[in-house]
Amino acid sequence: MKMFALIQSQDGYSGKSEGPQIASCDPWLEPASIEVPELLDGQVLVKIAMASVNPSDLHFIKGEYGQPREKGKPAGFEGIGEVVAGNGSYAESLKGTRVSFVVSKGGSGTWAEYAITDALGCIPVLPNLRNEDGAALIVNPLTAMAMFELVKETECKSFVMTAANSQLCKLLVALGKDEGISPICIVRNVNQGEHLRKLGATEVLDSSHPDFQKNLKSVIKNLKPRIMLDAVANQLSADIFMAMPNRSRWIVYGKLDTNPPIISEMGQFVFSEKVIEGFWLVRWFQKTDLGKQMQVIKAVQERFVNEKWKTEVSKILTLNEVMTGLPDALKTGAKVMLIPK
Amino acid sequence: MKMFALIQSQDGYSGKSEGPQIASCDPWLEPASIEVPELLDGQVLVKIAMASVNPSDLHFIKGEYGQPREKGKPAGFEGIGEVVAGNGSYAESLKGTRVSFVVSKGGSGTWAEYAITDALGCIPVLPNLRNEDGAALIVNPLTAMAMFELVKETECKSFVMTAANSQLCKLLVALGKDEGISPICIVRNVNQGEHLRKLGATEVLDSSHPDFQKNLKSVIKNLKPRIMLDAVANQLSADIFMAMPNRSRWIVYGKLDTNPPIISEMGQFVFSEKVIEGFWLVRWFQKTDLGKQMQVIKAVQERFVNEKWKTEVSKILTLNEVMTGLPDALKTGAKVMLIPK
Repeated sequence: MKMFALIQSQDGYSGKSEGPQIASCDPWLEPASIEVPELLDGQVLVKIAMASVNPSDLHFIKGEYGQPREKGKPAGFEGIGEVVAGNGSYAESLKGTRVSFVVSKGGSGTWAEYAITDALGCIPVLPNLRNEDGAALIVNPLTAMAMFELVKETECKSFVMTAANSQLCKLLVALGKDEGISPICIVRNVNQGEHLRKLGATEVLDSSHPDFQKNLKSVIKNLKPRIMLDAVANQLSADIFMAMPNRSRWIVYGKLDTNPPIISEMGQFVFSEKVIEGFWLVRWFQKTDLGKQMQVIKAVQERFVNEKWKTEVSKILTLNEVMTGLPDALKTGAKVMLIPK
Repeated sequence: MKMFALIQSQDGYSGKSEGPQIASCDPWLEPASIEVPELLDGQVLVKIAMASVNPSDLHFIKGEYGQPREKGKPAGFEGIGEVVAGNGSYAESLKGTRVSFVVSKGGSGTWAEYAITDALGCIPVLPNLRNEDGAALIVNPLTAMAMFELVKETECKSFVMTAANSQLCKLLVALGKDEGISPICIVRNVNQGEHLRKLGATEVLDSSHPDFQKNLKSVIKNLKPRIMLDAVANQLSADIFMAMPNRSRWIVYGKLDTNPPIISEMGQFVFSEKVIEGFWLVRWFQKTDLGKQMQVIKAVQERFVNEKWKTEVSKILTLNEVMTGLPDALKTGAKVMLIPK
């Protein structure tokens, strides 16, 4: 059986560190009609209804992610669709089930008509879950839930987020609101400030504003945040961290900016008990037992169905629009989704 | 009663960050004959036999330590001597006892004929403990013991130390040797390389050598250290850390270099689970229960008495030689000690 797919045009790692921005798809992706791979034991074939475009997908196709590219294989980590075939009894039992999933090792990507993944990693979804939420049920929501656990661990009443206009941060804003922990949002473009406040942000600070430093200091003084969830990893992040109180943790989970920061006050590690560490969902899966994973995924799905969360989609592209349309679509400010046609 | 003392000539913090080097004592210290302060409840008066000069003392008198200076009070954190008076029954019971101590809050410093500290913090010492070891029984040895616990936590078979010619690192080298965990010593001056190897260093790398990067990579590849105990906190430290394997910890406990480093690969926090954190003995005391503290101090004293450790002293100054002699004495390569006369 043949299928249409956007396949990776390069192998391995690039050795570069340019960030998830793309001006064109041409260096990284190729539209192709390819043979659907054979299912290995335990795998299912999923007919894709919708696939998401995450920053990690872009890091990956550019060869800057924690896993190597495989030339000729479809791109795309995450999606939703119906299981149409399975190899093995449990896998077969899923036939006809609508599932959300992240492609497992040895599988085949979601930016295609069909994807392949381990049956064990598939999440059967509720009928009233929207495709927009189901195609983005795992990467962002589990990252949000897991990082919010770190926020709660610090036992403080506020937390800082950079690049806070992202879908991930919107999920975190809602969690903060529900638990009474004040989200402090750092943005470069304050246009969405009102929207973030409506979602539950206590403070939205525009880092390009001339009074940013003054405003930041005042907010830190009032709310005393001791954790920063950081997608940018640049000098701004470092300066915010240096301004935060004793015992603050800087959790790096992305590096949208590729200019490495200077850590101006190394003495803060000694005298102020500050810590820089990171978060990667792949490790969370490795370290969290399956029962706990399933419990968190159930909570995630309920939040979407109960409309405590909503995936905000700014653009839906068909697969054959991706090569020409993706770079511009990524500038639309919210999530980009892909559908087969 | 009057005593001779080297008193702090400035108050509070300097707001600067110049490091522990001093070209002259004049801006920070003043020789003076002062009244011995009255003992508060629970305090003892100690007739100093020997006081040590630690990097933290120099950070402190320059106003760059985690505690504010108090103008007019004697400098010096650590020493050994005989208790000659006490206020309160336990304090009085120590009269005539030879003790090692670090000056407690509200006490009076050791760079003087007499010092004052809490009786509860005094360590009665064995008769055969040398003054050179007793005057440096706490700050370096407990830092070494506590940081070596972090090394053991990482469960790897080697560890990296910067500025490894220091007395503290020599203690750590001996611990590594005894426990079969290979010390990797980074030094700027390789003159003491042979001595460090004799003490137990597995590798001694000269950071000023043209082949340093190559040698470092080869050592890291062979020994796979996952923890760096760092007294320097500069670009060299950052570069070593970036070259270390996944799950490496960078423990900053000093900042001999005041040039802040650039962290070149922020993605390592995400994908490689690296962590930057700090160590400060003051926090260790706050967080470690008294029973455990006493147990570690007992082990420290035994190590010195059994000659598993030795404080290497390069210069002993009398108090009235300090103003003119200390800057040069600090260049002699090992520990400087002070005696009343």
